[in-house]
Amino acid sequence: MPDPPIVRIDLGSGAPAYAQIVAQIRALLVSGALEPGTRLPTVRQLAVDLGVHHNTVALAYRTLAEEGWLELRRGRGAVVVAREGPRASARAQAEFSQHLEGLLAKAAADGLSSKAIAREFRALGRKLWKGKTS
Amino acid sequence: MPDPPIVRIDLGSGAPAYAQIVAQIRALLVSGALEPGTRLPTVRQLAVDLGVHHNTVALAYRTLAEEGWLELRRGRGAVVVAREGPRASARAQAEFSQHLEGLLAKAAADGLSSKAIAREFRALGRKLWKGKTS
Repeated sequence: MPDPPIVRIDLGSGAPAYAQIVAQIRALLVSGALEPGTRLPTVRQLAVDLGVHHNTVALAYRTLAEEGWLELRRGRGAVVVAREGPRASARAQAEFSQHLEGLLAKAAADGLSSKAIAREFRALGRKLWKGKTS
Repeated sequence: MPDPPIVRIDLGSGAPAYAQIVAQIRALLVSGALEPGTRLPTVRQLAVDLGVHHNTVALAYRTLAEEGWLELRRGRGAVVVAREGPRASARAQAEFSQHLEGLLAKAAADGLSSKAIAREFRALGRKLWKGKTS
């Protein structure tokens, strides 16, 4: 029985497919839903499941490997590794702040209330950090 | 005495200049820092201030005009108008949720703590909604 794909491509999104794959797998890694030792689908398999070129998946896996999340094996396997998190650079903090402000302003411009936005933030915080955010 | 430009282009950012201009002016509009009746710099003036092509600024202004924030005048002037906010579509909500999750996971992967992320969220909420978020 094949498992459902671990990620889902949204064709209506402006983001490139590789970036969507990276973002979704990264969220699973941060939350611990994908633990060290977990074997990801092969590049070829995930490409078939998602209907994208295998280079797209390969680029996503390489990006996550460079961030220290995955070890890439011969034959295109990828295994989750225990990752030593970096200390946040000032650059990373400034970028986060800038992107978050843009995203919140866009949501408000699209008609989301500040309450709805705060609710979503809390829900995602619980999902990513299992209640460690408050 | 020339005022400082209302936006700032970050050359190190991956986002295109026009998108940075849109995002920053939109944040000023959402927060009310730019009120209805305010006249923005001309396309040409802002392009000179930022060191970008005037088409870049023109595209940013058109994008904000299409969102209902600006009225564009002959001679390239742009005036902030009172905007009837849309009701949030399901699509806008889903996109916000997806982008926010990606952004939070990236910040966590870059080493920002959940506390630092929550603090930044609250600070931006206060800035955009003047304390209406909690």
